[in-house]
Amino acid sequence: MIMQKIGVQCLGNRVKFTVWAPEKERMQLQLTSPRKQAFEMIKQEDGYFEFVLDEAGAGFQYFFSPNGNNRFPDPASQYQPEGVHGASEVVDHSAFRWEDQDWKGLPFEDLIIYELHVGTFTPEGTFEAIIPRLEKLAATGINAIELMPVNEFPGNRNWGYDGVYPYAVHSAYGGPDKLKSLVNAAHKAGIAVILDMVYNHLGPEGNYFGEFGPYFTDSYKTPWGRAINLDGEYSDGVREYFSENPVFWYEKYHLDGLRLDAIHTIYDNSAKHFWEVVYQKLNRARQQNGRSFHMIAESDLNSPHVVKSPEVGGLGFTAQWLDDFHHASYVLLDNQGRKRYEDFGQTSQLLKAYTDGFVHSGEYVKFRKRRHGASSVGISGTKFVVFNQNHDQIGNRVGGERLSMLVDFERQKLAAAVIMLSPYVPMLFMGEEYGEDAPFFYFVSHSDEELIQLVVEGRKKEFESFDWDSEPLNPQQEDTFNRSKIVWEKQAGGKYKIMHDWHKALITLRKTNPALRNFDKNDIRATLVNE
Amino acid sequence: MIMQKIGVQCLGNRVKFTVWAPEKERMQLQLTSPRKQAFEMIKQEDGYFEFVLDEAGAGFQYFFSPNGNNRFPDPASQYQPEGVHGASEVVDHSAFRWEDQDWKGLPFEDLIIYELHVGTFTPEGTFEAIIPRLEKLAATGINAIELMPVNEFPGNRNWGYDGVYPYAVHSAYGGPDKLKSLVNAAHKAGIAVILDMVYNHLGPEGNYFGEFGPYFTDSYKTPWGRAINLDGEYSDGVREYFSENPVFWYEKYHLDGLRLDAIHTIYDNSAKHFWEVVYQKLNRARQQNGRSFHMIAESDLNSPHVVKSPEVGGLGFTAQWLDDFHHASYVLLDNQGRKRYEDFGQTSQLLKAYTDGFVHSGEYVKFRKRRHGASSVGISGTKFVVFNQNHDQIGNRVGGERLSMLVDFERQKLAAAVIMLSPYVPMLFMGEEYGEDAPFFYFVSHSDEELIQLVVEGRKKEFESFDWDSEPLNPQQEDTFNRSKIVWEKQAGGKYKIMHDWHKALITLRKTNPALRNFDKNDIRATLVNE
Repeated sequence: MIMQKIGVQCLGNRVKFTVWAPEKERMQLQLTSPRKQAFEMIKQEDGYFEFVLDEAGAGFQYFFSPNGNNRFPDPASQYQPEGVHGASEVVDHSAFRWEDQDWKGLPFEDLIIYELHVGTFTPEGTFEAIIPRLEKLAATGINAIELMPVNEFPGNRNWGYDGVYPYAVHSAYGGPDKLKSLVNAAHKAGIAVILDMVYNHLGPEGNYFGEFGPYFTDSYKTPWGRAINLDGEYSDGVREYFSENPVFWYEKYHLDGLRLDAIHTIYDNSAKHFWEVVYQKLNRARQQNGRSFHMIAESDLNSPHVVKSPEVGGLGFTAQWLDDFHHASYVLLDNQGRKRYEDFGQTSQLLKAYTDGFVHSGEYVKFRKRRHGASSVGISGTKFVVFNQNHDQIGNRVGGERLSMLVDFERQKLAAAVIMLSPYVPMLFMGEEYGEDAPFFYFVSHSDEELIQLVVEGRKKEFESFDWDSEPLNPQQEDTFNRSKIVWEKQAGGKYKIMHDWHKALITLRKTNPALRNFDKNDIRATLVNE
Repeated sequence: MIMQKIGVQCLGNRVKFTVWAPEKERMQLQLTSPRKQAFEMIKQEDGYFEFVLDEAGAGFQYFFSPNGNNRFPDPASQYQPEGVHGASEVVDHSAFRWEDQDWKGLPFEDLIIYELHVGTFTPEGTFEAIIPRLEKLAATGINAIELMPVNEFPGNRNWGYDGVYPYAVHSAYGGPDKLKSLVNAAHKAGIAVILDMVYNHLGPEGNYFGEFGPYFTDSYKTPWGRAINLDGEYSDGVREYFSENPVFWYEKYHLDGLRLDAIHTIYDNSAKHFWEVVYQKLNRARQQNGRSFHMIAESDLNSPHVVKSPEVGGLGFTAQWLDDFHHASYVLLDNQGRKRYEDFGQTSQLLKAYTDGFVHSGEYVKFRKRRHGASSVGISGTKFVVFNQNHDQIGNRVGGERLSMLVDFERQKLAAAVIMLSPYVPMLFMGEEYGEDAPFFYFVSHSDEELIQLVVEGRKKEFESFDWDSEPLNPQQEDTFNRSKIVWEKQAGGKYKIMHDWHKALITLRKTNPALRNFDKNDIRATLVNE
């Protein structure tokens, strides 16, 4: 086990509280349950405050009060049973009874990934409700579920990218224990669990980080405002806060990997790059544990550096999403797609996606008003994840339409073959395997009225710029969320069953045909027939 | 010769005008001399406007008028005979009679660099006035002069970092032809010429770049405001504007290298980094020309990536200034230095500077309130330039004192030995070789009253934060500039002659002793005697 620096730790019947606040003079630990009591914490040399409470353990609830003023939840909270504004709760990770001792993880190139939004995957919208469906997924050939972010977010309806506590598990989904139960059950079913994590910003509601320390910097601008402070004054604590996070999920939750959101908006001008630190910490943890752990980047850079190792100047990710593959393929399947992806539409681009990887490797891209990308020729296919749709492509359409609503049945089957028989690691979006046709909308459940107005207006504006001809649904309305739920039972019959069988057959073919398990890009030839 | 895209070109008795303005509809070329005449330029596909004028050549003066509104100097002007606000003038580079055909440049590791400010090096403050002094410099053993920036700046007194035309040669120094004469004479004297260039910002006065295109971005913040736009919309033209600049100086002015100012404030999140583009363009030019060309970075990152090649994720610089060496050495020589360099003062740090390079290689640095740097162990000594003082350390003291005013004569001699016998490339600041004791102040000659006030106040504030006990001189006053001039004749006698002889002897020793020409860091041992 790697020495844990960030967050609360249970040590037998004592609890060690730790919080980083380098510019504060004093810090109070305010216990709220099982009893109300306040304790003055002890400041350490490196900007951390610590306090060890005897006769304490799981379930104890608390706030921190910097300089004796207002009290706020723990920035490294592991559980927020009453939401983003409520007290933090102590979690004892030694209490869970794991039954996955034989689980050693799966090689990345073997994965068939299934992106899943906990809230809309089942009627209950909980971790627990997923468990009975694992068997069916495994039978389909799926061996990895990738959960959209499950960190505590405001209310109980959110894609997860508004999460504010990267160490906490969302209360409405079932909290820490239920996530562990899901991982435990998944491993027993031969399924890996990957978690979507957001290090590029922290959600707007319940974000009390500024009350503790300089987590943000003015040096760089992101779509969400100020960037995370990874290289400015006091950045050491921020770097520790985020760089210890992957190991936390690996060790405490037995996770098999993370998907890192929009890493192109994570800026670090340090001599030792943040991702190199993460890479080294994970390597140490992997050596101790023996289980594999995969780091998947969402990157808008089209840069081969993302998946290269730090030894040759790379960021060290296991793999990255290959958006260009989606764009190239989708626009060929749906002619309407040209409106949205104006730089795609040539069959040769899909060929390039197969043989090279990045389609834009230095060409001028109209959408970006500049040249974009560098070549990924020769980089192994195991370094890229491909998909026909994910939450973004579906949910960022005004109608939230999946591919199944946009192209005919035969084209959907073709699309499935395009990714399943590719030299890349394929990913499905929940329900895609049986041609689910429920929409997937953007939804939130904020409590701050001003923020709700901002989100609704921002959403309208975003769609205007994309020239859609209708108005988006109100993301705050519960119905928008409810309509996004998939209907699992569909797959039992009719066209849904045919599509499900088709996916199963393709996955079987992929798993059993050695030619389809060759990820060496130098062996891939693609030829245009009857253009 | 590399195809030139940026700026005016003379083609026989025709002149081709080119200007980049991607968002403008129209562009007018307004000739002001030898006659007044306006021409509508022709817009190209990639955001450039072009116009070829017949029967034209060197000396023609002009402005550009975007969208038919106000007129402005050419952003890629090669000569501003009437200053930053005046008309641009056509330069015919084929007209100069070069006599340096035999000059092949010097290997970087052989250089003894001499930093020089044109305006204060001689009473005249011109390129021409430097020429008679080259012989003396060569006799001392100096074989490279590094000119502080000579791009057109406001007025006639400036360190040069307020320059706004990176393709122009400052008028008050003598303009393009006189710089060529200096380079020509230097090469005949066996002296290389390096130019200090600023790509991290453009000066505040005479900065009309925004009238032409999006040269700046809001994505990153620098000490001078918005950063240069190297990765946002329309960045292709900005990247071309700056990346072609080194080759321009290499080919048109026969320069031997550039020193790049504060590269840590030049941000580029592209898949192909700006410096990789520069590296490739320079390599092509070097292959064609056969002469060497050195790129020296000023970097505040303590990152070994700066001097590594792009093939292993580096920025590809020939070398970088080793500030840590200065700090480690200076603080040992002058106890007062501890006030300014609170993280230095241990003899072991100078040892580390000798054996490793960077002194801060990941340690916590109080001044920066964070850990800083990465190790440079094993990186060849040829990758670093060391010095006992440069314009910054002297000019950013409230009294503008050189080392000669701060420590006694024997310590000055020791300091000289510390760099001249080091496994690094040494650099002197003009006059240092004879122990010049004139101050070197910060000076400007802006014409904008508001700006002058800002500079004067900013300067005061900067010094307050450094806790100096006196007020800085007014940078705008001519006397501040005049007092910064060196007195060349001093070196003929007294203590100055002794110091000059000492430098000469050290340089001779360095050049003749094979052990002192070994830059392999693995061979360097440093031992502390009687700490």
